[in-house]
Amino acid sequence: MERQQYSELQKLYVEPKITLVGAGPGDPDLISVKGVKALQTADVVIYDALVDETLLNYAPKEATRVYVGNPSGDENFSQATVNRLMVDYALNFGHVVRLKGGDLFVFGRGYEEVEFAASYSVETEIIPGISSAISVPGLQGIPVTHKGNSESLWILSGTDSDGLLNSEIKEAADSKATVVVLLGFEQLNEIVSIYKKLGKGRLPAAVIQNGSMKNEKIAIGIVNTIEEVVEEQSIDNAGPVLLIFGQAVTLHKDFSRILNFLEQENY
Amino acid sequence: MERQQYSELQKLYVEPKITLVGAGPGDPDLISVKGVKALQTADVVIYDALVDETLLNYAPKEATRVYVGNPSGDENFSQATVNRLMVDYALNFGHVVRLKGGDLFVFGRGYEEVEFAASYSVETEIIPGISSAISVPGLQGIPVTHKGNSESLWILSGTDSDGLLNSEIKEAADSKATVVVLLGFEQLNEIVSIYKKLGKGRLPAAVIQNGSMKNEKIAIGIVNTIEEVVEEQSIDNAGPVLLIFGQAVTLHKDFSRILNFLEQENY
Repeated sequence: MERQQYSELQKLYVEPKITLVGAGPGDPDLISVKGVKALQTADVVIYDALVDETLLNYAPKEATRVYVGNPSGDENFSQATVNRLMVDYALNFGHVVRLKGGDLFVFGRGYEEVEFAASYSVETEIIPGISSAISVPGLQGIPVTHKGNSESLWILSGTDSDGLLNSEIKEAADSKATVVVLLGFEQLNEIVSIYKKLGKGRLPAAVIQNGSMKNEKIAIGIVNTIEEVVEEQSIDNAGPVLLIFGQAVTLHKDFSRILNFLEQENY
Repeated sequence: MERQQYSELQKLYVEPKITLVGAGPGDPDLISVKGVKALQTADVVIYDALVDETLLNYAPKEATRVYVGNPSGDENFSQATVNRLMVDYALNFGHVVRLKGGDLFVFGRGYEEVEFAASYSVETEIIPGISSAISVPGLQGIPVTHKGNSESLWILSGTDSDGLLNSEIKEAADSKATVVVLLGFEQLNEIVSIYKKLGKGRLPAAVIQNGSMKNEKIAIGIVNTIEEVVEEQSIDNAGPVLLIFGQAVTLHKDFSRILNFLEQENY
């Protein structure tokens, strides 16, 4: 009886904490061991559409699971709503794990969530994830850097904070860097035009949807053909899409076959 | 007795396989669950100086552990030697896990190792790691991208394949991207000069040594002061060092205090 009373008291005394965990590109086994340990001590898990739900099994049975949709697309769950939920749950229940697809910091808005929590003096911890910008091409056999082939990597989002085409893409297209564009599927046509204007219509290019997941799709070609191949492969915006431009794409196992075909067809 | 003979026979029949595992930036808990699972089925683990040795405990007791030094600095273990060891062990012992610091593909030379294994028709699997280029700044409270502050990320190595200053750094310094330089500590002075020549002496900058590890060190300042702060903080080349240039550094919790000081001192 005494023990039960003590445990009731404990419940009243909550130590709020928010742990941001990057779940990685999609394959649930690509989460870090540290991320799993955080989930195992969660009182609440707040997760979004990019997260594989099997990861929720790491959390204790009694932990509350809160789904917050697709933060960049779902009007029901704006970033402000997610921020508020995170802090509310932490203050009332204790340890909140905010489980996010990706790495947290490359267009992941992780800093915004940490900043908001800090403004309520809630302790925060950061557990980064594997970035899709690097790992998704790598898993497909396209190393984003490779000695003598590609000596740097420029990662951009398709749009700027006003939702317009990211103006830095033009500079990136003009550089020798491997260019990886996230959140840019709807800008593919505009980006292809930029490369063509720069005389780079024969630059190797690839588009990958649902990288590291079972329903992964890939289109490989050159700037001049990539939109056609994307259509052939039925790649769409349902699930994360990543664009890659640069010599690194030549290292994909199918590229030389594609190049032969293009040469026969006089592309 | 019969069982023992069968097991001897099994030993003779080896299925060679090489799994490349990115161990992440340094903290051993930042390895992926998939990386741990690979280690648990390893017959041989080949690891280098950037890997925390506690990770070797995931491998079976009877697995062979092979240390190959610092591949970029140690003459006893050139990349060619590591490649050869990997294939030799796989052909003779079965499942080789090649455990590498970092993510595998950002100056990690992962592709070279896969290519070499493939040339011997050895099956390979890739398990990417968390990239230090993104996670190390993030863990320090410097998000490599942040809405309205930094809209892209350019990752470069300090030197090109000839060991000279990477010529792309000048372009990167001239861009609006957050610039992260890996393997560039010895080029810090040259890189600072490039920024100064571009009139960017007041651009925020940071240098981090041993990111995510217990002996982590950080220097925060602006281009004009960063070399001085690096010296004050006794940052050296013993352990991985990463340079960051860009507005993203202003988001570090100490930056505003540093800025006030610089303004008082008329920097």
